[in-house]
Amino acid sequence: MSEVHAVRRGLLRDRCAAAGSAAALVSRPANVRYLAGGAPPGAVLLLGPGEDVLLCPRAPTGESAHGRPDEALRIDLLPVPDSDPVVAAAGLAAESGAGSLAVEEHDLTVARHRAMGKAAPRLVLADLGFTVEQQRIVKDEEEIGCLRIAAEITDQALGELLESILVGRTERHLALELERRLVDHGADGPAFATSVATGPNSGQGRHRPSDRRVEEGDFLSVRLGASYHGYRCEIGRTFVIGTAPTEWQIELYDLVFAAQRAGREALAPGAAYRDVDHAARHLLESAGHGEGLQSRTGHGVGLEIEEDPQLAPTAMGKLDACVPVTVEPGVHLPGRGGVRIDDTLVVRPEADGGPELLTMTTKELLAL
Amino acid sequence: MSEVHAVRRGLLRDRCAAAGSAAALVSRPANVRYLAGGAPPGAVLLLGPGEDVLLCPRAPTGESAHGRPDEALRIDLLPVPDSDPVVAAAGLAAESGAGSLAVEEHDLTVARHRAMGKAAPRLVLADLGFTVEQQRIVKDEEEIGCLRIAAEITDQALGELLESILVGRTERHLALELERRLVDHGADGPAFATSVATGPNSGQGRHRPSDRRVEEGDFLSVRLGASYHGYRCEIGRTFVIGTAPTEWQIELYDLVFAAQRAGREALAPGAAYRDVDHAARHLLESAGHGEGLQSRTGHGVGLEIEEDPQLAPTAMGKLDACVPVTVEPGVHLPGRGGVRIDDTLVVRPEADGGPELLTMTTKELLAL
Repeated sequence: MSEVHAVRRGLLRDRCAAAGSAAALVSRPANVRYLAGGAPPGAVLLLGPGEDVLLCPRAPTGESAHGRPDEALRIDLLPVPDSDPVVAAAGLAAESGAGSLAVEEHDLTVARHRAMGKAAPRLVLADLGFTVEQQRIVKDEEEIGCLRIAAEITDQALGELLESILVGRTERHLALELERRLVDHGADGPAFATSVATGPNSGQGRHRPSDRRVEEGDFLSVRLGASYHGYRCEIGRTFVIGTAPTEWQIELYDLVFAAQRAGREALAPGAAYRDVDHAARHLLESAGHGEGLQSRTGHGVGLEIEEDPQLAPTAMGKLDACVPVTVEPGVHLPGRGGVRIDDTLVVRPEADGGPELLTMTTKELLAL
Repeated sequence: MSEVHAVRRGLLRDRCAAAGSAAALVSRPANVRYLAGGAPPGAVLLLGPGEDVLLCPRAPTGESAHGRPDEALRIDLLPVPDSDPVVAAAGLAAESGAGSLAVEEHDLTVARHRAMGKAAPRLVLADLGFTVEQQRIVKDEEEIGCLRIAAEITDQALGELLESILVGRTERHLALELERRLVDHGADGPAFATSVATGPNSGQGRHRPSDRRVEEGDFLSVRLGASYHGYRCEIGRTFVIGTAPTEWQIELYDLVFAAQRAGREALAPGAAYRDVDHAARHLLESAGHGEGLQSRTGHGVGLEIEEDPQLAPTAMGKLDACVPVTVEPGVHLPGRGGVRIDDTLVVRPEADGGPELLTMTTKELLAL
């Protein structure tokens, strides 16, 4: 493990040097974790010009294993209880002779950035941009292994819920129940706030669970994911409650299913992000559901639940192998409800069998 | 409700005008909620020079009631799906003739701030600082009413847990169980990540629940709180499991209890923050537990779980009436465990009966 993180830091250091900065300060928590193997709350990572060091607002005691940097790393841990770690880092970089320090301007607030400038007035603060986020897009097999376990946990939690009685229970309770089961099966916790949407709420990806109870005849959409060793996956399924589905429900389900399958099948190394999006989106648009469609039909996952790439009409770029993404189109008909189907997959070349599906729960329209 | 928020915005506008800015942009979510009655994800509030307007990254559909701005507000809602709302706000402020716009530099990232400057090059971006946070410190009775309900919910959830069998269950499960019960009793959700700490972990405020199981003879520390209509409270209690407590457990408990009582009794309008902290802290220090003590023994609560004031040795300022705070000293003996006792109280004048205790669960040392 520790070597992996050292290699990642080496890569970043090379990129910074090429851009003219001998030192970099990484403050975005997922980036810190990616490069150091762990991110105690508030910790920031100073790379070069001396030894790499993790600056923490306090000595990290009493943390559980997952939040701690890998001890095998031998990365120096420097508690700076009396100042903002980024300010201490600026001082340290200046002391060790760095002329410029690349910082994450998309993460640092104006106030912290200014305080760094005051603490080290001769240090030029450059912008590291999204360099680490870009580095994180393609995953190694260990990372994909974590995502695979996260998906297994998620499938188990969802599978158990489907065996229980659903009618009469509230969205809120079902969401909590799912989250409890995720943890039961070994998740660090939910990857994001679990969404359970019934009846007219169904089909909305970001619906926050309410006190509405599941009723006979409802569509029921759930969207959940486990986090495992920090890696987050996502699954979304829509079911029909009780009676057999009505005609409009079957039609809508078939449409979204076809769109989701088209998106999945478009995943390949070299495929443009926008083409994957288009594959799913145009089926929904052709069927007259263009209005109100979500702005993207998928996105990368990893240490954060929403990473690059974005599978969206205006996204620039092409998929690489070993990039895990979601494919998650949906249609919501105001007042009636709708359908969402989300999977997490890993882009693989045709020769390796094509996209690897991580979330295995059936996508048949189940009547529960 | 809507009048309350308009009055708050009026107050803020006056303060901005006094500081030389006719317009302000509020981006910190809790501040947006305080001033607008709700904060859809990513929404920012532009105050003056024209009508106040809430800029949202997308039209807020399918949100549950608590996340939405009060419709009675008649505050304009402007969806800006294709740009960062703060950038759109800068353009809007410039168009409506504002010469300067006060922004929350402690919330805005360098990258967003720069994008605002590019979008409106003639607009001077001033710093609003913590003006809204300061405005939020003293609560009105409606806010305190929400906190009171949050505390009732929290007491109920904790009370139910105490009636169940604890030995053999993991910290993680107990934490999830508590969070489920909070929601059962009407919470929006937990106010912060519930901490359950057993045996050697006990007494640590920030312990993340692990797979350790509750054992006979353990100290068990729990720390939880409900969020109700956005208002967050906190309770912390320590119990002994199974057998009668041992002598060191009783001694340590009595000490922390005395310190916590001293802190509570020091709460009064006009009391210096540091004096309240000292009242609790010096008892622990005198007993030889000075090393490893937490940096503060309490803090304000409200729309965020950690607000000003800070009850800490170097904090400047004095308490006002109607300020809700926690008093939460603790001692942790490495390898053995420890005790924490947290309450949420509202500062009230002596004439009104002194500090109002919101979290009612007994502070006797219970053997469960």
